[in-house]
Amino acid sequence: MTREELIKNIRSKQSFLCVGLDPDPTKMPAHLADKPDGLFEFCKGIVDATADLCIAYKPNAAFFECQGLKGWEALDRLAAYIKTQYPEQFLIADAKRGDIGNTSKMYAQAFFERMPFDAVTIAPYMGTDSVTPFLSYPGKWVILLDLTSNAGSLDFQMMTDSNGERLFEKVLRKSLEWGDKNNIMFVAGATRGSLLSDIRQIVPDHFLLVPGIGAQGGSLREVVEYGLNDSCGLIVNNSRKIIYASNGIDFAEAARLEAFNMQKEMASHLKMIL
Amino acid sequence: MTREELIKNIRSKQSFLCVGLDPDPTKMPAHLADKPDGLFEFCKGIVDATADLCIAYKPNAAFFECQGLKGWEALDRLAAYIKTQYPEQFLIADAKRGDIGNTSKMYAQAFFERMPFDAVTIAPYMGTDSVTPFLSYPGKWVILLDLTSNAGSLDFQMMTDSNGERLFEKVLRKSLEWGDKNNIMFVAGATRGSLLSDIRQIVPDHFLLVPGIGAQGGSLREVVEYGLNDSCGLIVNNSRKIIYASNGIDFAEAARLEAFNMQKEMASHLKMIL
Repeated sequence: MTREELIKNIRSKQSFLCVGLDPDPTKMPAHLADKPDGLFEFCKGIVDATADLCIAYKPNAAFFECQGLKGWEALDRLAAYIKTQYPEQFLIADAKRGDIGNTSKMYAQAFFERMPFDAVTIAPYMGTDSVTPFLSYPGKWVILLDLTSNAGSLDFQMMTDSNGERLFEKVLRKSLEWGDKNNIMFVAGATRGSLLSDIRQIVPDHFLLVPGIGAQGGSLREVVEYGLNDSCGLIVNNSRKIIYASNGIDFAEAARLEAFNMQKEMASHLKMIL
Repeated sequence: MTREELIKNIRSKQSFLCVGLDPDPTKMPAHLADKPDGLFEFCKGIVDATADLCIAYKPNAAFFECQGLKGWEALDRLAAYIKTQYPEQFLIADAKRGDIGNTSKMYAQAFFERMPFDAVTIAPYMGTDSVTPFLSYPGKWVILLDLTSNAGSLDFQMMTDSNGERLFEKVLRKSLEWGDKNNIMFVAGATRGSLLSDIRQIVPDHFLLVPGIGAQGGSLREVVEYGLNDSCGLIVNNSRKIIYASNGIDFAEAARLEAFNMQKEMASHLKMIL
């Protein structure tokens, strides 16, 4: 998917919401948790109930891998389902991959050729050749971990060199050698508030994928204040607050209501720019 | 597997060789590349031919994931085969995982509960809570990326703070808060030569998993010179030079010969200490 198509979808849906699909059998409705294809059915239920309110879905690979083969089958089926039924959705594999060049090439094949994902989240620690193989696919995206939403993000990402440059800033700057606003985005946690404006100093035009709203405590208002640009430039993810809004048979309707409320709030912010 | 068991295996086999299993259909023997279970059969052939010469196997998840469902099935089957037939082998999932705490927990389940791996390679970028869930399994190991063998490793891992501490050193030091020599190892590339002695300043007793010998150009002699400690403290990986020693029907014998030569060289180094 091109940047222009993504922006068009944001404008037409008045939403920059990404729904994170982290299906956990201990949290999902009991009538699905025990079914052989419960993982897929649960995610499908959420997708069908929210597709007009969001512009992206982000299946989290770990929640599928931990179920073994039936989990991978569910991920495979889910990715195909979303891109077939809702081709306008930006489909993100939240997989945090990254390895030496010849190995990253294989991960890129897994997510971009075997499965129809538009983007993969990538860890930058191994540098250039761990990232660039993902950038050789036209219309596909790297979403580089930059300043993450978790507590541990402060351990290394804020490391500062003798010129005052922090690691998360170095990652941004280095990435400008690898690609541009048309094929790279960055993970920037909603829990990092005003640091988003430091990110915007270096990448004013790139899209940021922002997790950490909801269960992790980040605020949408703050994300918009520091991160919105004149093409929106934000994809804000919510997983748990939406997909676990109810663990009864009404889970899909409850998810829709949460997504609806978020979309409404997003629309009010978008009015100013799009 | 405990540290003591690992050292015992190194002593009894006079080897600290890890065989990396990166099965690539474009490089493997033609009579296997086209078979439905060729990925498994190829790796099984290598394993059966080398198991008495090495102390660890390291399947590379990317090379299985890129084959889709049949690849995951092969990885699952291979892990079970190795731990059933050769339970003394230290089985490493080279998967470079790492995510926020609740997600890393799911990756740990995937590799330590669904599959019988002894260790997983983990990227440190997201910090404490991305690593610690893997450390709650007795007898299982985290192998933390520290100073990798690829060209891109210099982009961030050598970043230096105002006290002169480099990122790869910060990762080592931080990890001492998470675990110890009994449950954490570090990836340290053979291509980094004398920097291995800087690593040994901070973690004299930990095991290092050393890739980069062979196709990537690192030297075993140098790795031993800078990295060996009095419990060996090294697991040296070779993938391509062994598994692609021949692409004919003699691939397993050719792999055995390469592994045999490496084991002989390792035995000569071990004589001094074990």
